[in-house]
Formats: sequence, C-alpha cells, structure tokens
Amino acid sequence: MKKKEIRIVFEPSGKQVVVGPEKSILEAASKAGVSIRSECGGRGLCGKCKVIIPSKTGLNPLTKNEKSRLTAKEIEKGFRLACLSLVTGEAENVTVIIPEESRLEKRRILIEGFERDVSLEPAIYKVFLEVPKPSLEDVRADAERLLNVLGEKMEISLEVLRKLPTVLRDGNWRVSVTIWNNQRIIDIEAGRSDESYGVAVDLGTSKIIGYLVDLSNGDIIRTATIENPQLVYGEDLVTRISLTIEEKEKLQELHNVLIEGINTIIEELCKKASINPNRIYEMTVVGNTAMHHFFMAIPPKNLALYPYVPAVKYPINIQAKKLNVKLNPSANIHVLPVIAGFVGADAVGDVLATGIYESEKTQLLIDIGTNTEIILGNKKWLIACSCASGPAFEGMHIKHGMKAVSGAIERVWINPKTYEVKYKTIDNKKPIGICGSAMIDILAELWKAKIIDFRGKFKNRINTPRYREINNKPEFVIAWRHETALNEDIVVTQDDIHEIQLAKAAIHTGCAILMKRKNIKKKQIDKILIAGTFGNYLDPVNSKIVGLIPDIPTGKIKFVGNTAGLGAKVVLISKEMRRKAEEISKKTEYLELAADPDFKVEFAHSIYIPHKNIDNFPTAKKYV
Amino acid sequence: MKKKEIRIVFEPSGKQVVVGPEKSILEAASKAGVSIRSECGGRGLCGKCKVIIPSKTGLNPLTKNEKSRLTAKEIEKGFRLACLSLVTGEAENVTVIIPEESRLEKRRILIEGFERDVSLEPAIYKVFLEVPKPSLEDVRADAERLLNVLGEKMEISLEVLRKLPTVLRDGNWRVSVTIWNNQRIIDIEAGRSDESYGVAVDLGTSKIIGYLVDLSNGDIIRTATIENPQLVYGEDLVTRISLTIEEKEKLQELHNVLIEGINTIIEELCKKASINPNRIYEMTVVGNTAMHHFFMAIPPKNLALYPYVPAVKYPINIQAKKLNVKLNPSANIHVLPVIAGFVGADAVGDVLATGIYESEKTQLLIDIGTNTEIILGNKKWLIACSCASGPAFEGMHIKHGMKAVSGAIERVWINPKTYEVKYKTIDNKKPIGICGSAMIDILAELWKAKIIDFRGKFKNRINTPRYREINNKPEFVIAWRHETALNEDIVVTQDDIHEIQLAKAAIHTGCAILMKRKNIKKKQIDKILIAGTFGNYLDPVNSKIVGLIPDIPTGKIKFVGNTAGLGAKVVLISKEMRRKAEEISKKTEYLELAADPDFKVEFAHSIYIPHKNIDNFPTAKKYV
Repeated sequence: MKKKEIRIVFEPSGKQVVVGPEKSILEAASKAGVSIRSECGGRGLCGKCKVIIPSKTGLNPLTKNEKSRLTAKEIEKGFRLACLSLVTGEAENVTVIIPEESRLEKRRILIEGFERDVSLEPAIYKVFLEVPKPSLEDVRADAERLLNVLGEKMEISLEVLRKLPTVLRDGNWRVSVTIWNNQRIIDIEAGRSDESYGVAVDLGTSKIIGYLVDLSNGDIIRTATIENPQLVYGEDLVTRISLTIEEKEKLQELHNVLIEGINTIIEELCKKASINPNRIYEMTVVGNTAMHHFFMAIPPKNLALYPYVPAVKYPINIQAKKLNVKLNPSANIHVLPVIAGFVGADAVGDVLATGIYESEKTQLLIDIGTNTEIILGNKKWLIACSCASGPAFEGMHIKHGMKAVSGAIERVWINPKTYEVKYKTIDNKKPIGICGSAMIDILAELWKAKIIDFRGKFKNRINTPRYREINNKPEFVIAWRHETALNEDIVVTQDDIHEIQLAKAAIHTGCAILMKRKNIKKKQIDKILIAGTFGNYLDPVNSKIVGLIPDIPTGKIKFVGNTAGLGAKVVLISKEMRRKAEEISKKTEYLELAADPDFKVEFAHSIYIPHKNIDNFPTAKKYV
Repeated sequence: MKKKEIRIVFEPSGKQVVVGPEKSILEAASKAGVSIRSECGGRGLCGKCKVIIPSKTGLNPLTKNEKSRLTAKEIEKGFRLACLSLVTGEAENVTVIIPEESRLEKRRILIEGFERDVSLEPAIYKVFLEVPKPSLEDVRADAERLLNVLGEKMEISLEVLRKLPTVLRDGNWRVSVTIWNNQRIIDIEAGRSDESYGVAVDLGTSKIIGYLVDLSNGDIIRTATIENPQLVYGEDLVTRISLTIEEKEKLQELHNVLIEGINTIIEELCKKASINPNRIYEMTVVGNTAMHHFFMAIPPKNLALYPYVPAVKYPINIQAKKLNVKLNPSANIHVLPVIAGFVGADAVGDVLATGIYESEKTQLLIDIGTNTEIILGNKKWLIACSCASGPAFEGMHIKHGMKAVSGAIERVWINPKTYEVKYKTIDNKKPIGICGSAMIDILAELWKAKIIDFRGKFKNRINTPRYREINNKPEFVIAWRHETALNEDIVVTQDDIHEIQLAKAAIHTGCAILMKRKNIKKKQIDKILIAGTFGNYLDPVNSKIVGLIPDIPTGKIKFVGNTAGLGAKVVLISKEMRRKAEEISKKTEYLELAADPDFKVEFAHSIYIPHKNIDNFPTAKKYV
C-alpha cells in the first residue's frame, strides 16, 4: 500500500521533512529549508539541481529529460534531477544526498578588501534544448514549439523570433536558448553553447569604467577605462546640464558621445578577452544621477534647479538595441536605481558593495568626488546627503593643482622646526604639480608646524625663505624650481589653502549633519569607509587633523576604492542584489543639506582647522 | 452601532447584495453581478463609474478626487464615483442608482450587415491628473510622483520618461496620461486632452486597407486603401517568399516597402481626418500568415516548405517605433494571432467579425482570395483549411481576365436558345475584360445552355457564330469587338474554363472535406458566409450551379465583405475581442488539405460541373 506521508532526509545536513506522494525532491527541499541550485525554476531545463538518491524504491523512474542531462556514469551513481524526481509513496523514507555543486551556498566574492556574501544568481541563463520536429501531424508554430518545451509563460524577443526559424533548422532542432529574468528569451543559437557574459559599467563624471564578467562563475575577466567623452563639453556636471538647457539638441549630443564611449569600452573588453559581443547578454549601469539621466537621454535640467528632483528613481530595464549599445541586440540593460537628485546609482552601488546596509554596526561611507556622497547607517536605517565638495581635490582652482597622475606630488611632510619640506611624487618623477591627497597633507603639515593658524591664515612671522608674499599675497614653496620639471617654484597660496578648507568643510559638514540628525556620536561609528579613486591616496591621520572626516581611531578608517562600479558588478551576477539595490534606493532617507537649519553654522565651524570645536578632534588637539 | 452587514440595492435592476463595511460600491456591484463601467480598474482615475446614491448616510464623505471629477450639479444630484464610495456601516441599507452612461452594456456595432455585440473597451485610455508639485519636503522623482497618483504597478515607456520632466512643468503639474492595457504609460501631454485614435490594418496580398478609429466611441472615421507595394516583387505570395529564400536582403526590402505603404496609409488617414499621428496610440494588424511574417520581418521561408509551419502563432505586441511605423512612438502594435501556415490572422479576423465562434448553429465561412480560407464551425468547435484557389478569380491566367475594376464585365447572361449574350460592366463602361464573378456566370450559363458539358468541354456542334475554333482551340465570344473598348472580341477559351474549374474545385474540395471530417451535412449548415472583396460580386445561384459552394438555399448565402479588416477593428476597440481572437487561434483545428486521404478524389470530382455527384446539387440538377 502506498504511503501518504513520506519522510525525506537530506544529507549532509540531516534535515528532514514529511511530504505527500507526487511531490518533487526540489519541492521537499524547499519545504525543509534546504537550498538546492535551480536556475530554471524547477522545469527540468537547467540541470543544476543534481542530487544523489541511493535507493531507487519510492521514486518515479528516470525521466527522458534526466537521461539527456545526466551522464551514464552519473546515472550509475544514483544521480537524479531534484525537480523531476517524485516520491511515489512506495517507500516510507527516502534519503537524498546533495553534492557540493548543487548546494546553493553563498559564494564569498572578494571586493578589493571586502569579502561579501553574494549568491551567484545572474538574471541570464542558458539552456540546451531538443525541440520536436514539425510534421503534418504536428504543425505547431516554431515559437509555440519552443515554448512548449520551456513552459509557456515566456516572451520571445522580436530579434529572436526573426532568427528562430533559421536557427531551429540549422541546429537540426537542437538549440541553446538564453533567457533573461525567467521571462524573456533573448537569444537562440544552433547547437550547444554555454558562454554568457555581462558588463558592469560605472559612469563617472570624469571617467567610465567597464568590467567584463563571466556570468557562469561571476568572475571579472577584463577591465577597461576611458575618459568620459563628455569632458570636452565641461568638466563639471553643472556645465553639461546648463548646455542642455541652453540648446535642446545638446542633450542628444551628450547622450550620443556617452553611448559611443561605452561602445568603445565594450569593443575593447571583447577584443582583450576574444569574445563575441553577441554573447554579452546584460549590462548593469551605475552613475551619479546626472550621468544616469544622460545615459538614457532624459533631460537632467531639474537636477540643477530647485528642488533638484530626478526624473525617475526606480531601476530601469531597457533593451540594448534601444540605446544603440552594441551588445547582443536583445540584451538587457539594467540601470540601478538612484536615491535623489544628487545621490545617484553610484551611491546605491557603494552601499551594496560595502554591505553597510546589512551590518548591525553603524558605518559612515564617503564617496569623494566633485560631488561627494555621504551615507550613514546600518541594517536598520540609512541616510544620505550630497555635498558640493567641488573639484579642488582634482586640482581645479589650485595654483599648482593637478590630477593624481604621473609627476604629481602626492604626499608632503614639513619639518615643524626647520620648515624643510619632503615630498613624494607619483612614479617618483620630478614634480609638475600637487594633487588632492598632497593638499590635505600640506594643510595638516602647515598647521602642525604653526605656519598657518586655525583659520588657515599664514602667520606672517615665519622665518623661512619658503614663506613669502608676492603682491601682498602670502604663499609657501613646496618645491623649488630646480627640483621641478617646471620653470617655476611649486607653491601653495593662501587662496589654495582656502579652497581646500571649503572642500573639506563641505564634506565634514555632510558627515556632521547626518550624524546629528540620527543622533549618532563618533564613538558609535564602527568604520569610516572612504570610496572613490581620490580616497585611495589620502593619509588618514592628516585627514583627521585637517578635519576632513570625524576623528575616530585610524584603524577604523578604510579606503575601499571604486565600490560604485563593484555595486554594478554584484547586481550583474545576483538577482538578489538587484532587489537589495531597489530596497536601498527606497529605504535611504535623503537629507537636502543646504536646507538643513544647522547647515550654515556647521559649515562655518568646519572651515576652521580642524574645526571650531577642537575638542572633537583629539588627534589634532595633541598639536596645540 | 455600526452594522457589519450592509445590504446594497442596485437600481434599475433591483439586484441586491450584502457586504461588510469599508467595501466600495464598485466591489459590491461586482459581487452582485451588476456591471458598472470602469476603465482604470477602480482607482478613481477614469471617472467612468458614476452612480447616484440618494441618501448620504452610511457612506464615506465625498473624496477630494470625486470633487475634482464630478461637476457641482452632479454632486448636488447625489452623484458619486462607485470605486471611491465606501459603505461605513452606519446604515443598514444603501440604494445605488446606476445611470445609463455608467452601465457596461454591450454596444451593438454594425459590421456591414452584421450586428455584433462588442463592448467598447479599448486597450488605450486617457486620464487627466493633477500631480503634487515637488518641494524640499517632497523630493520624490517625477516618475514616482506620477505613479503614486496612478497606483504603482505601471511601467513608463522610455519615450515618456524622456519628456516627463518637461511636460509636468509645462502643464503646471496638470497632465493627461495615456495608458496601454492598464500596464504602461505611453504618452503624457500638458493639460487636458481626450483625443485618442487607433488604426486597424488589413494586410492583403494585393491591397492594404487602413481604418482610422476614434477610440472614444469605437467609430471608424476614415478608411484608406493602397495597392500592396510588394506587388512589384510578385503578384503571388510564393514568388515573394521565393525571393527571400534566394537573396537574404530581400526580406528586409519586402518588409521595408510594406512599412512604407502602411505609413502612407497612416499619413493619408491623418490628413483626411486632420489629426496628429502622435494621437494614434494603437494599431491592430491582420493578414495572411505570409504578410504577417513580412510585417514583422520574420523569414516566411518555411511557410512555403513542408510541413508549412509558421514561425509564431500567438498574438504579438510590438512598440510602433521598433517597426518604424509612424504613430505615437510608444504606440502599441497588436498583431492578431494566426491559425496555421496558410490560415492567417485574416481568418481569425473573419471568425471574430462574423461571430461564427459564438453561434449555436454551424456556419461555413469562405474568404475567397488567391488563397481561400475556409472555416467551418460553431460555438463548440471550428475547423479551418486553406485552398490554393489561385489568381484566376483576379483575372490571372484568363485570356481576357482582369480585376473587378471599371470596364470589367461583372455579370453575364446567355440565352439558352439563341445563345445571345447579355452582360453588365462595372460603371457601365465599354467592356475591356472579364472579372472573376462574370467567369462564374459564364461557366454556369454555358453549362445551362448546354454549350459546354459537365466536364467543361465545348460541345462542337453549337450553331452560333459566337462559338468558333481558332487553331483547333475552341472559344466563345462574350462581347464582339465593336461593343468593346478593345480592338478585338472578348472571348472565353477552353483553357479559361478549365482554369476556373480548377479554382472552383479547390474551394469546393475544401468545403467538402471540412464537412466530411466533422460529419456535417449540407442541411446542417445554417449559413454560408462569403468574405473577401471578390465575393461581393458573385451570383449565389450561379455559384451553386457551377459547384463553387455547397448547394444550400440561396437565402442562407450571405456576402459579408472585408470581415478580416473588421476583425482587426473589433480587436482595436475591445480587449475582450482580443482575448477571443487568441481563443479562436488556439481552438481552431487546422486541416492540411493536401494531406487528407480524400483530397485527390474529392478534388477530381469537384472539377466537374457542378460535381461528379450531381445529386448533391439540386439547383443545377434542374437544368439536366
């Protein structure tokens, strides 16, 4: 007599569950809370849910589908597909062994210093199918024929419909189908094909970074970077946005050069890795809200106008062909959601890649750029603001300022007694200018050496030839002419110092106000994470001394690199991360800094070195 | 104390229902089986569910939304929106009067002689919205702001996203939104706009017909016809399909000229009606399966190769822009489903427009063209086949054959004693040729006058100068040279007669075999519906005499015109009809005529006039 209750034991975990007859092992596993890989949703297509069932009694016989997806050796060993194995009730107990490769265990994915648990679950999967041939007795259409093998609830993209009849016949009715998000067939190829790739793109104001990812294992296989081709239209976003307001056609032009730039990156990635761009089935995109709008040719005008609202916030899926991005024509482009007009998809990427949204402890994330995004929070809440830190850290508006490229002075030390200067340049070349990280050093060193006061003013009785006044304007020589690759001394002026003070004040104000709104004290901050390429070169101690960031123990300050781009990458390989990104975008509270009642006062106090209230800066206070 | 059960009485029907508190009148009506119009799915947007509730007790107060959608006069009279009126439980009984305009009664729509019950329920609706302005306290993105007013489960097309920020502000946050299928926003306009149009297109092998439809009332406001621009590539489909097999680029070329043709029609319709093509939000398309494939640039090759399967059968929705069809760029194109390789969306349109799928009685529908589709059936079942009737009825392969245009002989009578001929031409002009309907007359009249025998052969002892043999080939003069606009006699040859016999035999065979397969006798056929433009000119009695169609009482034979195009039109104005079309496509059994074991014999018998078995043709038998 058939049993109505069958006990299933899953090994190696030993978890048990009782089910009725005709239930699949996959369903039973789900009920038992045992994770088994399955990409096709239990349709017997992906062949990922392999399990070993030592005893054959109590189970339906091996299906045709299993025979085609398991090797003879596997069958001999008792392998089955969990989704196609049904308990019949002829045995009261069934033991199921889940082999390593079928366990849906979260993989540890290394993100420059972070190890994040991300389960490999891309929106793309490929499946090999045998489709029954038509005959006069079976005149189903090609599309229906294919869908009947797959399960009917799927769309077929127009591009695939157009090649469907040819590919089915060229492949002698054996084809590989690429499916997006379990809902749309976006490619079909004759015969067997396993290759599938994705591209994660970080659209920065100044540069674009592309990561080519193998979707079968989640690995980044190539990286490519180019200057943002929009740079010729203006270095900062406000200039570019203004252009689109003055002349309507400019939006299309700025959009077009951006798309061309992305296509250049894709081409380079494909060439480097020797892959066919038709095998790139998805692209994920992060960027600040302005770049996000430019990418989709959505007018960014209102980002620059009060009250600075974006056109759209939620994540968007667009067919690659629609934006002329040269991937597989039916490939999907997934644009990550933004948080607000000045806190974009890049910030969502930062939060996602660093995982601050799932930590019990409160962390402060600062993504420094022309606009600096600051996010404070933990598992329970997140709050974000943006501050106009300006391009001073990129070398703009600084007499000898420059970007962090070869020949830039990147670190500076000043002897507080002799006022002598030591410096280090990138690539150890003769100096040609000073980059942002060195400007922070200079501010800290000048202040520690008491060459400038807490207001950033030069004290005019400094006994060194390095200090001088030109047309009544004080300046300090960092490198003498003969040391440089220039025909002049490299100096830092009173104006330069003031410029850096404004930039650091903007960032500190953002941090301070977020903390105040959430009533978070310094000691409650478990870590400060500094993201963005500039951040990587900063000296943490000097950053605290000048009051760029809240003064917490140096060991708690971490430089995390391009987490925005890595956010795009995790979303590319994980549907769960995609859902998380949307949650983060919705859940993150946005604080409009300029409208905060404490903004003006806090900003004024933050201009001081380190701050009007030095008690909060013990590292600096030691030097007073 | 609040009641937990509230009785609602709907007038004028008197239907009653009991509901709990906080239920809306719309929900109650649905529960009671009372139909109230609602296009927005009960979201308070469309303003179509107006009802009169004389007593105010027991209901929530008038909502803000209702105040903006009802006039002061209506409010005075007790009007409410059913979806926003909730019973509170403060009264035990509530009476609701449903005014005429809110009753979802099926409209009788006249389809050239048919009156079909089609409820006006297009996939498109427009709604006027007031969107809250953004402020620093409310920095929601434009898209989220709009969706929050509408209900969140809707997509916004990329084109709309691109104009959203501008239109919202140009309209001072008062906008009209066009929604497709309750799921996608496809247009947004500043201020109030009610206009919305659709186009129904019938893609014939020889001509394309477009109907411009006002979606607010379902009326056809303009019609336009052009020759199918593919004609220069070949008059018949097989030639065009062959071209695409020989040269791959030809498919794109044939697709392009077709799209250009459709754009010409749209332009003409818009010009005639003085409307903006941006206000055309949907297009529905029917056509035979080859035209269906050409329209979407899907290779039609396999339609011409055994076993003649289409690439896709199910209905398809495509964005207009994707096919370069010049409607509103986000407009939807709905391509009706097909039945088989040779029974297309046009046949689905025929079935839909004539309503044979909902009749208790069995009807036989014949859509005559180069390919003739035949559908037999009723409410319970439908069976279809296609027969290669060839282009003889269009005048091809007939010595003096021509299309049914000005100057064509369309009716012919022959005196059986004198053999004198009378004829009628289109527009009463001097004859220049003979069109298809006259060829059927000629066959019938020659046979009745015993000039030809049952095999279609001329009897060679006919005493009239009209009968003659040229180079041993017999022919019969229909119009003497001096009567014509030509420089010669208009004749019908032995070959012509044979050509028509083959064509009529093909059609009769299709009818006979479908009937045989379903075991349907002539007397069980309630009506024969003859569709297609050729059909309109046919003489029903002569059609029976030659054995073109089964011999049933003349009163049961009906000429129904272009029902394929009207099928596209009903689908345009009714989502229900769209579902029906899909049902018809799935449910209709397809019979591959050439593969039927009885085909050869039946075809051979059908070549005779009227048929090998004359007993089945009592009308003809009278003349023997």
